Amino acid sequence: MSAAPTRIYLDGNSLGPPAPGVKERLASFVTDEWDASLIGGWMGHGWWDMPTKLGDRLGALVGAAPGQVIVAESTTVVLYKLLVAALKLRPGRSWIVTEEGNFPTDRHIIDGIASQFGAEVEAVPADQIISSICDGTAVVCLTHINYRSGFRLDMAAITAAAHAKGAVVLWDLSHSTGAMDLYLDRDQVDLAVGCTYKFVNGGPGAPAFAYVAERHISTLAQPITGWIGHVDPFSMSEVFEPDPTIRRMLSGTPSVLGMVALEAALDTWDGVDLVALRARSVELTERFIALADERLVPLGFELVSPRNPDDRGSQVALRHEHAYGIIQAAIAAGVVGDYREPQLCRFGFAPKYNTIAEVDEAVDRIVSLVERGDHLLAAYAVKKKVT
Amino acid sequence: MSAAPTRIYLDGNSLGPPAPGVKERLASFVTDEWDASLIGGWMGHGWWDMPTKLGDRLGALVGAAPGQVIVAESTTVVLYKLLVAALKLRPGRSWIVTEEGNFPTDRHIIDGIASQFGAEVEAVPADQIISSICDGTAVVCLTHINYRSGFRLDMAAITAAAHAKGAVVLWDLSHSTGAMDLYLDRDQVDLAVGCTYKFVNGGPGAPAFAYVAERHISTLAQPITGWIGHVDPFSMSEVFEPDPTIRRMLSGTPSVLGMVALEAALDTWDGVDLVALRARSVELTERFIALADERLVPLGFELVSPRNPDDRGSQVALRHEHAYGIIQAAIAAGVVGDYREPQLCRFGFAPKYNTIAEVDEAVDRIVSLVERGDHLLAAYAVKKKVT
Repeated sequence: MSAAPTRIYLDGNSLGPPAPGVKERLASFVTDEWDASLIGGWMGHGWWDMPTKLGDRLGALVGAAPGQVIVAESTTVVLYKLLVAALKLRPGRSWIVTEEGNFPTDRHIIDGIASQFGAEVEAVPADQIISSICDGTAVVCLTHINYRSGFRLDMAAITAAAHAKGAVVLWDLSHSTGAMDLYLDRDQVDLAVGCTYKFVNGGPGAPAFAYVAERHISTLAQPITGWIGHVDPFSMSEVFEPDPTIRRMLSGTPSVLGMVALEAALDTWDGVDLVALRARSVELTERFIALADERLVPLGFELVSPRNPDDRGSQVALRHEHAYGIIQAAIAAGVVGDYREPQLCRFGFAPKYNTIAEVDEAVDRIVSLVERGDHLLAAYAVKKKVT
Repeated sequence: MSAAPTRIYLDGNSLGPPAPGVKERLASFVTDEWDASLIGGWMGHGWWDMPTKLGDRLGALVGAAPGQVIVAESTTVVLYKLLVAALKLRPGRSWIVTEEGNFPTDRHIIDGIASQFGAEVEAVPADQIISSICDGTAVVCLTHINYRSGFRLDMAAITAAAHAKGAVVLWDLSHSTGAMDLYLDRDQVDLAVGCTYKFVNGGPGAPAFAYVAERHISTLAQPITGWIGHVDPFSMSEVFEPDPTIRRMLSGTPSVLGMVALEAALDTWDGVDLVALRARSVELTERFIALADERLVPLGFELVSPRNPDDRGSQVALRHEHAYGIIQAAIAAGVVGDYREPQLCRFGFAPKYNTIAEVDEAVDRIVSLVERGDHLLAAYAVKKKVT
């Protein structure tokens, strides 16, 4: 092979590419804001209000009216804050229902909070979630799209079932935001957390966001009570009184650089039709599955993601006994997907920039590399390096 | 007045200026790392190891041998994690001793944790800290330099007194790091948190850092157990097992942008002699106090910071009945300090870049503006705008 093959990036569900203009925006931030205004930038350039301003723009991507979404820390930290607060919304109830096979960070946070705050965890398969919700359930805490299989839970139905039993829901939208239409307000979701470095393209370690339904904001008590979430931070009062708005979700000084890059990414989302975006996502995954059935299954691959697009996010997982070597060889051939335990090749399709032609070309290259046996060599090379 | 006056920045204790090269480093990060390598950047460009690599470099600024400092989130969030963990180091003890007038975020976190985890808080004046530590004290949680007065607590003596009673110490180094020599290892400090956007110049909302003494790392149980702190994150295990190293302090995906800017700032700290830095800091504050005694006290200012430099950080606070208007007028005259309740003008002296000539010129301008009555007009203008 002579020149490096064109990159086909099917891992935007792990880390999205930079938005056009982000480099210039960061440069202008350093020179025209930070250096020019120093401490005055907090008010003069609106850094202080960025968590809520960007929050409202993210709200438009998840079906939330303004005032209910705020940008902060990481998905993990925000999930911690929301879940502790959620338990306090339902005193006297002690169960947290989640899905077996939920993303590890979600599971670790749920288990950690349960042991620290005296709750109990019930982790069940997707089809038993609704039947597991009972009068003792405080919170139903789920990831909308399974990170491994791409299975999509029915947010409206599960939320309604939780409410019917008096529980609150907390949805993790990490693999949903920026890939499909979402309706947090319409579906009466209580709380949600999401990631902005996957389909939203905010950059590695970009801040997460929290959604708190308007009806819960004034009573929500999150545990990391820092001065930025105080009703009047500059009073320097030693007595904590939370801001009456969504700002009470804040704790410490937010990363302005992270928000500046996120702002540049959000500029590319203005006016995006989310229904059309979802249609495009379905088109991409349907095409990939059809080609996989025809050309990859005969080579030993097995579809792990749901066949029904309604049950699927914007990614497709294929099991193969040599999955790890296949992903290494695919990356070498310019097709960037990722490996997930056990034996899964995971391909994310970002409806904002991936094309049908890329899907076709990706399958061509995977077929070729498996037929050539590149995946066996790739796995061997990695093994040699490791041992 | 025709041209704007040269800026004399005496607020580097609130937000430091950008390091030379930070803009270029961010641009190169976007193009040569994020865009070029996408998901491969985590390992290929070492993003994964940045929290500990930068942590070790910060360790050199606080007297910590490698492997004990890690970069993460914000001072508030890190303080929360460390304080919850600190309480668990002393089961059966329930008191947290702190200083009356500690920075609000520290106080809010202490109070919040006390109420959530069943501890009690004793907030006492600086001179009663040591006598307040008793056999029931679990943690002595203090800020080294008082944000308001600049009073510097005796870290070695208080740490020793806490240990004599079996308690652990948690020091907040927000106003110390990058302004003086520190000796966490030598002084046998247990835990510490610090800020990198003040004297270290990491940028607005730059990540904080945590110090955990080597002897505590393997048993420290911090509450926000996310997948990045797992011993083997890519095993995707649903059972949390903390990393055996300082990485267990991590929770979610760290802000790479924030760390890239911090790295550019840390490049300017290599080889800085901290003892000389402290000497310079003392020289600057001594000069300012001498001039204040001579020229500002007659205008109604009163020194609030300690006279003995050993008891002082790198800032000086002056009380004045028109403090708010004076700070507004001073900023208009190019002397950037900040106002703190009640009636305090606070001036920070960054020994890395502030000069004696700047101190002299700043006092000149403050004298002039007070003599002209600018501060009365400034206060009036703000009042009109607000009401």
